Amino acid sequence: MANSKYLTPAVADVDLIIEAHWIATMAADFAVLEDHAVVVHDGLIVAVLPSEAAKQAFRAAELVNLGEQALLPGLINAHTHAAMSLLRGMADDLPLMTWLEQRIWPAEQALVSPQFVQDGSLLACAEMLSGGITCFNDMYFFPQATAAAASQAGMRANLGLLVLDFPSAYASDADDYLQKGFDAHDSWRNNPLISSSIAPHAPYTVSDRSLEKVITYAEQLALGLHTHLHETLEEISRSESQYGMRPLARLAKLGLLGPDLLAAHGVHLLDYEMDMLAAYGCHIAHCPSSNLKLASGMAPVVDLLAKGVNVALGTDGAASNNRLDLFSEIRLAALLAKGVSADASALPAMQALAMATINGAKAIGLDEKIGSIEVGKHADLTAVRLDEVLLAPYYDPISHLVYCCGREQVSHTWVAGELRYCNGVYANIEPQELKDIVNTWQVKIQQVKQPTK
Amino acid sequence: MANSKYLTPAVADVDLIIEAHWIATMAADFAVLEDHAVVVHDGLIVAVLPSEAAKQAFRAAELVNLGEQALLPGLINAHTHAAMSLLRGMADDLPLMTWLEQRIWPAEQALVSPQFVQDGSLLACAEMLSGGITCFNDMYFFPQATAAAASQAGMRANLGLLVLDFPSAYASDADDYLQKGFDAHDSWRNNPLISSSIAPHAPYTVSDRSLEKVITYAEQLALGLHTHLHETLEEISRSESQYGMRPLARLAKLGLLGPDLLAAHGVHLLDYEMDMLAAYGCHIAHCPSSNLKLASGMAPVVDLLAKGVNVALGTDGAASNNRLDLFSEIRLAALLAKGVSADASALPAMQALAMATINGAKAIGLDEKIGSIEVGKHADLTAVRLDEVLLAPYYDPISHLVYCCGREQVSHTWVAGELRYCNGVYANIEPQELKDIVNTWQVKIQQVKQPTK
Repeated sequence: MANSKYLTPAVADVDLIIEAHWIATMAADFAVLEDHAVVVHDGLIVAVLPSEAAKQAFRAAELVNLGEQALLPGLINAHTHAAMSLLRGMADDLPLMTWLEQRIWPAEQALVSPQFVQDGSLLACAEMLSGGITCFNDMYFFPQATAAAASQAGMRANLGLLVLDFPSAYASDADDYLQKGFDAHDSWRNNPLISSSIAPHAPYTVSDRSLEKVITYAEQLALGLHTHLHETLEEISRSESQYGMRPLARLAKLGLLGPDLLAAHGVHLLDYEMDMLAAYGCHIAHCPSSNLKLASGMAPVVDLLAKGVNVALGTDGAASNNRLDLFSEIRLAALLAKGVSADASALPAMQALAMATINGAKAIGLDEKIGSIEVGKHADLTAVRLDEVLLAPYYDPISHLVYCCGREQVSHTWVAGELRYCNGVYANIEPQELKDIVNTWQVKIQQVKQPTK
Repeated sequence: MANSKYLTPAVADVDLIIEAHWIATMAADFAVLEDHAVVVHDGLIVAVLPSEAAKQAFRAAELVNLGEQALLPGLINAHTHAAMSLLRGMADDLPLMTWLEQRIWPAEQALVSPQFVQDGSLLACAEMLSGGITCFNDMYFFPQATAAAASQAGMRANLGLLVLDFPSAYASDADDYLQKGFDAHDSWRNNPLISSSIAPHAPYTVSDRSLEKVITYAEQLALGLHTHLHETLEEISRSESQYGMRPLARLAKLGLLGPDLLAAHGVHLLDYEMDMLAAYGCHIAHCPSSNLKLASGMAPVVDLLAKGVNVALGTDGAASNNRLDLFSEIRLAALLAKGVSADASALPAMQALAMATINGAKAIGLDEKIGSIEVGKHADLTAVRLDEVLLAPYYDPISHLVYCCGREQVSHTWVAGELRYCNGVYANIEPQELKDIVNTWQVKIQQVKQPTK
């Protein structure tokens, strides 16, 4: 039924109308709209209204009728290292330090270059777009190469300006990392899809002095912060030995805590530490698959949410997951929270979906632009085949999206109103290009791969 | 390279040769063969040898070259209630007793009939075949209706002859359940794909007297036993109140423990109870998604395996999962075991895959026939597109199958040498048939669905 309050006096010309049986808006009221349409112009959502009313009020250059499908805000991967897709499965079933010191770091030392990062990031962008992810929050060497890949794919990315205190192929010391970061930041200044955060890798790899610089620059440039935090018990005990305090306390002392800080993992948190995170307005990127696979533990997500901490969802890198698949993470987060809290009503489906959409947008400071389907936001959208007979029946679209659908049900992915992926085909990525990337790097990686397991 | 020991003196005519880049045999040595072929005749595996040698030694009516794909033994779903696919997603995010008493049981009381069971089971068979599952171990009302569905789909099934002490649309009391079970057992006597177990539902729904009858009949008929056991803490405390002992101790006292017993769940087990299970040779069907979703807990799989208990994998029913997807369960089992045991090397990929293949076969007493790719076994086989570029690169096929692939990568499913599913198409199930089933039952189920949530 057309609702008169939506009607504009004259028919307006717009770029695109997308009709869907279900629209999960993920707006403040978590409204799920039935038989509605999203009207898109110049990359923005200009109206959300009943389908019939949309077609009366707007004349679209393109009309996409999704039939029985569901339309969601594009998923937001709040913590990843996209380029590590090339290291997917190169080492599994190993304890964290063996994995890191004997496999991942040697491979990175031997191989990481701008080309490695661009190629690996493009492969990751293809995987993420096909799984309904429209935006990723990254941290890796050579972020300009990641920006190039994201730009080719047409994805939105918030790229970390990595800071470490040890040298790499990318930079020599913290000052050099910062300078290279700022150069990168300048390079994508005019790219509307790329934004920056400063990314001190982790408390155990960045000194107090470097962290102080990070804060100064973050304030000057009004940039958010992205770091790993309280991922493992070893990280915490190391900090206690070295600094006489837990990592979170150290970050608090140095002044890093605040609503601009997104901390990945947060697996091991004491009750008062969760209160601190809530009081400071920090965000957590929960990465359940990675935390289980590396045996880091299970983050206290239910407690964090109860205390009012904003919790987003991340895949982490493909070396520790091994799928850049937020549908898997949404389902796992919802299941794991119930198991850990011994409460089957914990982290219900809508809240799990919020973690992968609006919470992710808040965590990276882009919630004015993305994370929900609302007028004025950018048209980052994902369509899901909710109605496949093998998944039938369903009674609640949100439950079905979270507990039953997989990324294989994603049919369309739009970023800023542009269709970037549709049923196996990318707007700007050729399958042969991906095959060439894999063939090239697989040989090189196998050469540095340790023979023992 | 042809290996002379495999060559027979003359070329033999056979039904089928399947060539694959990787064959995960899941035999005792867990050999992974490269560029080999499986030769099938009269539904049986008659040879496993290098591809070139196979084509020299055998002349096949049909040759399937799977290219870069992997071939596995068909997956075995060791615990499910297939017909409950119709109740998928009808109630989520609810505590176990609310879920069961206010949603599932009323729906079952209102709806369960032979037609419900046959229709729901056919939908489940379609879902399972498309995900590489060739055999399922079931427990539900009207098992003859499940047998009819499995027969149509061409799946192997071990069907529980359900025993309960309370009446249902299916039977009035334990004796009636047993009698109807034996009638069902007789009905599929000549069906080579259907076998039986006696399935006392759970310690809390079956009396001592009925369990004693179950044992007597199981011994007379040489049938295995399938039950739910130690799924929740409440089940255990109820048993302590009612019987003065924990359920496992009660089953031991009654004489149910032994190598013929498959117990689903085993979430809450004390150390000495795991020793008992090992000593008696009992099997556990681990159902990690269901146990998390209903907040039952996390089974001590690593300890069970270390003590020598055979642990298989199950999806449970679609009402508590909500995917009948063993790829999800394999991955979750491997990840969860690491998180729970704080050891990233726990439950490595090959062991997780074994749980869904050879361990499942052992658990239902069919390991002489299925569960691995070996000469003399039935040709229950699953082909997986290991080589999709979006999942690339990969370095170890077993790791890739467990941590990266999903059921969406399954291309072919054979049961006893017959191709039952291939790239979206079933040998004996029409898509319209499934749509009609869903349309019919969805309306009826919505009518009994409680309005409140």
